[in-house]
Amino acid sequence: MANYEEQAAIIDRLFPEAVNWRRQLHRNAQPSWLEFYATGLIAEKLTEWGYTVSLGKDVVDADNILMPPSSEKLEEQYQWALAAGIKEEFIAPAKNGLTGVVAVLKGNQPGPTVGFRFDIDCNEVIEANDKDHRPAREGFMSEQRGYAHMCGHDVHTSIGLLLARYFSENRSYLNGTLKFIFQPSEEGLAGAAAMVPTGIVDDLDYLFSGHVGITLQEIGQIALNVTDFYAMSRFKVTYRGRPSHAALCPDEGKNALLGACSAVTNLYAIARHGDGASRINVGTLEAGTAWNVIPDQARFRLETRGISTEINQYMIEKANEVLKGAATMYGLEMEIELGAAAPGGVNTPELIVMGTDLARQLPSVKEIIPSAGLNASEDISLMMRRVQSQGGKAMFALFGTPVGGGHHNAAFDVDESVIGNAVKFLVAVQELVAR
Amino acid sequence: MANYEEQAAIIDRLFPEAVNWRRQLHRNAQPSWLEFYATGLIAEKLTEWGYTVSLGKDVVDADNILMPPSSEKLEEQYQWALAAGIKEEFIAPAKNGLTGVVAVLKGNQPGPTVGFRFDIDCNEVIEANDKDHRPAREGFMSEQRGYAHMCGHDVHTSIGLLLARYFSENRSYLNGTLKFIFQPSEEGLAGAAAMVPTGIVDDLDYLFSGHVGITLQEIGQIALNVTDFYAMSRFKVTYRGRPSHAALCPDEGKNALLGACSAVTNLYAIARHGDGASRINVGTLEAGTAWNVIPDQARFRLETRGISTEINQYMIEKANEVLKGAATMYGLEMEIELGAAAPGGVNTPELIVMGTDLARQLPSVKEIIPSAGLNASEDISLMMRRVQSQGGKAMFALFGTPVGGGHHNAAFDVDESVIGNAVKFLVAVQELVAR
Amino acid sequence: MANYEEQAAIIDRLFPEAVNWRRQLHRNAQPSWLEFYATGLIAEKLTEWGYTVSLGKDVVDADNILMPPSSEKLEEQYQWALAAGIKEEFIAPAKNGLTGVVAVLKGNQPGPTVGFRFDIDCNEVIEANDKDHRPAREGFMSEQRGYAHMCGHDVHTSIGLLLARYFSENRSYLNGTLKFIFQPSEEGLAGAAAMVPTGIVDDLDYLFSGHVGITLQEIGQIALNVTDFYAMSRFKVTYRGRPSHAALCPDEGKNALLGACSAVTNLYAIARHGDGASRINVGTLEAGTAWNVIPDQARFRLETRGISTEINQYMIEKANEVLKGAATMYGLEMEIELGAAAPGGVNTPELIVMGTDLARQLPSVKEIIPSAGLNASEDISLMMRRVQSQGGKAMFALFGTPVGGGHHNAAFDVDESVIGNAVKFLVAVQELVAR
Amino acid sequence: MANYEEQAAIIDRLFPEAVNWRRQLHRNAQPSWLEFYATGLIAEKLTEWGYTVSLGKDVVDADNILMPPSSEKLEEQYQWALAAGIKEEFIAPAKNGLTGVVAVLKGNQPGPTVGFRFDIDCNEVIEANDKDHRPAREGFMSEQRGYAHMCGHDVHTSIGLLLARYFSENRSYLNGTLKFIFQPSEEGLAGAAAMVPTGIVDDLDYLFSGHVGITLQEIGQIALNVTDFYAMSRFKVTYRGRPSHAALCPDEGKNALLGACSAVTNLYAIARHGDGASRINVGTLEAGTAWNVIPDQARFRLETRGISTEINQYMIEKANEVLKGAATMYGLEMEIELGAAAPGGVNTPELIVMGTDLARQLPSVKEIIPSAGLNASEDISLMMRRVQSQGGKAMFALFGTPVGGGHHNAAFDVDESVIGNAVKFLVAVQELVAR
Repeated sequence: MANYEEQAAIIDRLFPEAVNWRRQLHRNAQPSWLEFYATGLIAEKLTEWGYTVSLGKDVVDADNILMPPSSEKLEEQYQWALAAGIKEEFIAPAKNGLTGVVAVLKGNQPGPTVGFRFDIDCNEVIEANDKDHRPAREGFMSEQRGYAHMCGHDVHTSIGLLLARYFSENRSYLNGTLKFIFQPSEEGLAGAAAMVPTGIVDDLDYLFSGHVGITLQEIGQIALNVTDFYAMSRFKVTYRGRPSHAALCPDEGKNALLGACSAVTNLYAIARHGDGASRINVGTLEAGTAWNVIPDQARFRLETRGISTEINQYMIEKANEVLKGAATMYGLEMEIELGAAAPGGVNTPELIVMGTDLARQLPSVKEIIPSAGLNASEDISLMMRRVQSQGGKAMFALFGTPVGGGHHNAAFDVDESVIGNAVKFLVAVQELVAR
Repeated sequence: MANYEEQAAIIDRLFPEAVNWRRQLHRNAQPSWLEFYATGLIAEKLTEWGYTVSLGKDVVDADNILMPPSSEKLEEQYQWALAAGIKEEFIAPAKNGLTGVVAVLKGNQPGPTVGFRFDIDCNEVIEANDKDHRPAREGFMSEQRGYAHMCGHDVHTSIGLLLARYFSENRSYLNGTLKFIFQPSEEGLAGAAAMVPTGIVDDLDYLFSGHVGITLQEIGQIALNVTDFYAMSRFKVTYRGRPSHAALCPDEGKNALLGACSAVTNLYAIARHGDGASRINVGTLEAGTAWNVIPDQARFRLETRGISTEINQYMIEKANEVLKGAATMYGLEMEIELGAAAPGGVNTPELIVMGTDLARQLPSVKEIIPSAGLNASEDISLMMRRVQSQGGKAMFALFGTPVGGGHHNAAFDVDESVIGNAVKFLVAVQELVAR
Repeated sequence: MANYEEQAAIIDRLFPEAVNWRRQLHRNAQPSWLEFYATGLIAEKLTEWGYTVSLGKDVVDADNILMPPSSEKLEEQYQWALAAGIKEEFIAPAKNGLTGVVAVLKGNQPGPTVGFRFDIDCNEVIEANDKDHRPAREGFMSEQRGYAHMCGHDVHTSIGLLLARYFSENRSYLNGTLKFIFQPSEEGLAGAAAMVPTGIVDDLDYLFSGHVGITLQEIGQIALNVTDFYAMSRFKVTYRGRPSHAALCPDEGKNALLGACSAVTNLYAIARHGDGASRINVGTLEAGTAWNVIPDQARFRLETRGISTEINQYMIEKANEVLKGAATMYGLEMEIELGAAAPGGVNTPELIVMGTDLARQLPSVKEIIPSAGLNASEDISLMMRRVQSQGGKAMFALFGTPVGGGHHNAAFDVDESVIGNAVKFLVAVQELVAR
Repeated sequence: MANYEEQAAIIDRLFPEAVNWRRQLHRNAQPSWLEFYATGLIAEKLTEWGYTVSLGKDVVDADNILMPPSSEKLEEQYQWALAAGIKEEFIAPAKNGLTGVVAVLKGNQPGPTVGFRFDIDCNEVIEANDKDHRPAREGFMSEQRGYAHMCGHDVHTSIGLLLARYFSENRSYLNGTLKFIFQPSEEGLAGAAAMVPTGIVDDLDYLFSGHVGITLQEIGQIALNVTDFYAMSRFKVTYRGRPSHAALCPDEGKNALLGACSAVTNLYAIARHGDGASRINVGTLEAGTAWNVIPDQARFRLETRGISTEINQYMIEKANEVLKGAATMYGLEMEIELGAAAPGGVNTPELIVMGTDLARQLPSVKEIIPSAGLNASEDISLMMRRVQSQGGKAMFALFGTPVGGGHHNAAFDVDESVIGNAVKFLVAVQELVAR
């Protein structure tokens, strides 16, 4: 069609509905592997709009779920979604935590298969409850204390819904095939790793995704040359030693707390890498039981990152040496469990160039930011690498919006008009690559 | 009277009642500052037996209570005691956690004031529930899961009750004044520190106390030359830093977890003392919130000990330097809260000699252990030092009994005949010093 | 003149002399603040060629000399230079370690003042003595074992001499003023800091400098867009504690070795900076006296770097906190002495553009490397910042040459034709900016 | 003979000669494995007095010499002794560092074999040179700066010489056999370990040794119940890693200095032992080469002690775990070399009782100290254990004397009359056990 004003008019007309969806999602925020409300809402809508919807084990590989929630949590949040009005038929396949939706729409004309990926999980944060925070002021705050969309995934999901709605209404103009991927557990950097093994991205010629409000703080800004995806790995480490009385026989203990402390100091001391940025953090540590007992157990959570997959690999190897060394020092048994992982990612250069040319023509784009560093990890990188390794092209874009407080902050919020802007770009870019 | 056979006969006659009290106390175990059941039982009995009973703020200084329980806990355990049949008049003065009892009996003849101290709190341990464990087998297990008398303070309390009963029945022979001190929170090493400021030991010429089953594992054994009381101090340390994103701006964080780890390693590395044994332990550590956040808070529990008060003081000073140094290293704020304290203690040599001569004459004593190291801390030391500093004499004895599992173990139990044995010695020693 | 072929012909004619100088310098290598041979050779030649030569305190500020050599070393190397044929009149002003030369030549036509800086000190390395190493094979190895030009500063000095010779022969064409700066102690990152306070760069409109063989390994390569100068600081740290007998009274010691070890681990653990590369290294550590004595002294050498001056400043501040914290931990006195310092540096963009255009026209240039990271520290940055802060322009270039073994390696060597290539570029660029 | 006055008179007559020997030894002080002067003097005298003298490999096992001196040192000190008047025949067998003397005298009557052991090495200390220090004032200071008898082994050797002289003059009264052992390298805790394998103590029924001036600061004091010999072990540890440039590629290094620092902190943090005193010290550490190079080598000297051999063994095992752990942490190769070792020691109780009774009768004894802790290590323990393990009896005594400055201090000195006192006791005790 390529009449951008016309596209925009259609999207603007549908927009109020998207705002409504976003607020329902915000109110019913659920975290990693528990996104039953979002799964149900998406599945129902896309089914209604004519998409072929896949759920449960068809889109999520149960064997590749890292850090699944407890069965109590699963049951609790499943019931929450039902109570909030979700129809059980749309979430029954996801009952064991296999949340997420994949939906396909074939166009009337031949063309490439274009994928769009949106993340649907919330953060485990207590949402701000004051008048400066619009969800509080306007009554769509999260109804579950401790769960809240403080990273904009409710907005991402709404972008996906509005985009899907647009195409279903304009299917006659559609070239090729659309595939919508609504991914659980992006915050856990685990969702992509569970979806990719089911083959859902293997047929994609293009994959588009993005994030609202990172670095770009104004409506109308867009960045396509997004760099500095950190490859990342997360580990849960447990040291087990032997308890003993701290006064009578300290020599008989094997001090897991002390071993953990020695490990931690030396983990941060891993040599910086000459080829680029590396990161390490021990985010939590818990050890010991009582004042007068040599602590026999310590658990900690460790993450490594590297500006390249190789540098992250270097950090992992060095961290392993340190962890083994500290265990040797104090005679401890060690258990390491992978908690999450994401490789580095690179936007396909051709798409950056093509997308930039397109953006120049879009009335909704006010400013193209030539280069923006993500400086964080996003498991879209796993899908991107898969698509690119099979000859496909992938791009992760940033869409500007002011945010009230930073990402993951209790008062995070967006200007909802970013939803329309993102959809306008994605509609146009699909049309362009499928022309 | 000094006819030890006759004394023994009386005590043996009263003994079954003591067993009954012990089992009631065992069943209604309550920990530090929550010993409402024991307080009520003791207060009622001693009042009934003619003692002048003091309670609440008269015997416990509210300003000197370390680590008091929450008001919810206080209310819960207060209600538990009432439900278990305790009369409110005897525990109302203790309602805010001012547990413990002091009771006085004046003899008909003049003589010294002789104090006896018994500790009444239980441990926070889940009691073993199997047939090898007599309280389980015979139906007097603790009725509150997680609270249990696994250090024999139920037995100590029963010794106190039986001793009080004996004297009340034989008051006509009594020289001088008796003062019974039933102390809360010995496990917390906090009860003595709260009772001493009320002046309750200031008038004592003699103070006797003891423990069942430490080192001495046979009925009939006694040790009076008890050495190696560790002076001890416990601290709760909190480091507060500044959170930041571990990938975007690790430089902006002030890492409390890392500071704590650095402190811990260096705390254990405090130089051994040339003059005698020292100890240090960091029993618990909790820090951080999330994988990707530089941890802004760390809390840990630290104890120091020394075979003398001076050596413990050395450990405290060095620990403080290390704690300050680690805070300086990482720009952290530090908060240190005293959790418990006990000085070293020494039995008055004259009493050891006198008591040993006495023990040789007692039919209930099968073996006198010439010297036994406590190798632990006991806050009786605080009362002993107070009495001794004012010219009084004090002795802490050990009474032998097999124990099922060690002290604080889930299957700890005693041979209840140790109750009678202990009372026989204490009756005789009172008579001796008050002769 | 701008006939590059003609310039090249003149330079090629003078070249054999430059090779000769280089080999004399190589044979008479002297390190930081002891470069009497180089100082004397340069001063004599430039005087002979009509330059106005300044020496000693006119070009080096004695109060700003970091880590000066001992008076014995100064005397020894001074005598070495005399024995090697240097005329005393040219090095007498440098006798106390005030080595280095500044020489000025005024052109016949008006024009800007253009500075060229060359470093003259050698490394403290034992030179390889085998046939694969040309200085050994052809008989111009360093004659002082342990001192050797393993970083090419002999080559840099020869470039300076050949350039000076060229201009003196072609003075009639010269616009503006030339200022040659032969700097001591670049390896110590200390020479620029001692020269700048004398004002020698304050009148420069342009400053050019460079290095042979870094990254660029082929004759004919040139890089002008040189990035990633690390800002750097070096410190000598001394901890002083108290000795005591390790068996009798370890508690009385203040353990400087242990304090240093705690500092070191935590220094490496300083958080990486979110804005770019940081570095830290403790290069040497010496502590203690005897097995059975608590060590009362520890000395170590520490360097910090940052890809920007700000990041290096961050590292310095954090290092100071760690050093203070470790001293607090162990009751140590601390002394910190600055050993060297260099800020970050940036080539003036205009010169990069202009120089690149020029390089395209030079027959001696085979390849222009668009961007090359120095990834090291060079105290030319101090002079560059001074010039740039006063409105001048500065550029540090890299000139390609194969090197036998890496920089600072015992077998470092160059293809001497890089001397001519560098001179050809510098002649042309002077002409260009002074046109 | 047992007429103690008569014995004393003889000893007092010989005493001035002993003072002379002591001062010659003091002037010609030589350290561990280099005691050529003492070896020569002793061998010459005892040969002259009729003893059968053994030297070199007959008394020292070359394979068991820990930390031998360099051949340059050996040659230098050998020449020193010759220049000081020692006859080469008496030291030629010791030329390779096999210093020490064993001498035997058989009595006319049958009886047990009684050994006496004296240590002959000096300290590596610069002797005080002021008027308060008698050796300086009276002209018998050590003539080799840096070597000095600051632990009284010159006095011990003189006791041995005077005792040998006494018996040779009074051989007609002698029962049994005497064996004099003059041991090298006591300060290095290495001499006994090299002598015992030659079998020299295997035939002893009794072994006596002692020390002047430890704890006992007055002439006439004696202690026979000497306790608290620390078992001790010394190790030289080398870590080897890989150097790399600290700015360009810190990740390629394996940081031996950092590994050593991590080891050191954790070595001091080895848990105290519940059964008694333990010690650990890292006395020296040297690592690294240059500011900007990741250090590839670290060397340190470590000693462990325990109040029992078992506790020292515990410390060794835990130290090994820590050392291995730190090597694992940083990918280092580790080399551990034993530097010295001594087990714990216990005087044979029977000799304490017997010796105490004897001491009561000696006019030279003014006070018997009932119990004295050595709180240090002495390799006599190795000989004692060997003798005791074969049914013999052994005792290490302390002889009182004021000392000017403590042991190993630059101003250490004794009241030489302690020599006579010690000899009087040793003569009497030999007579007693050989009666």
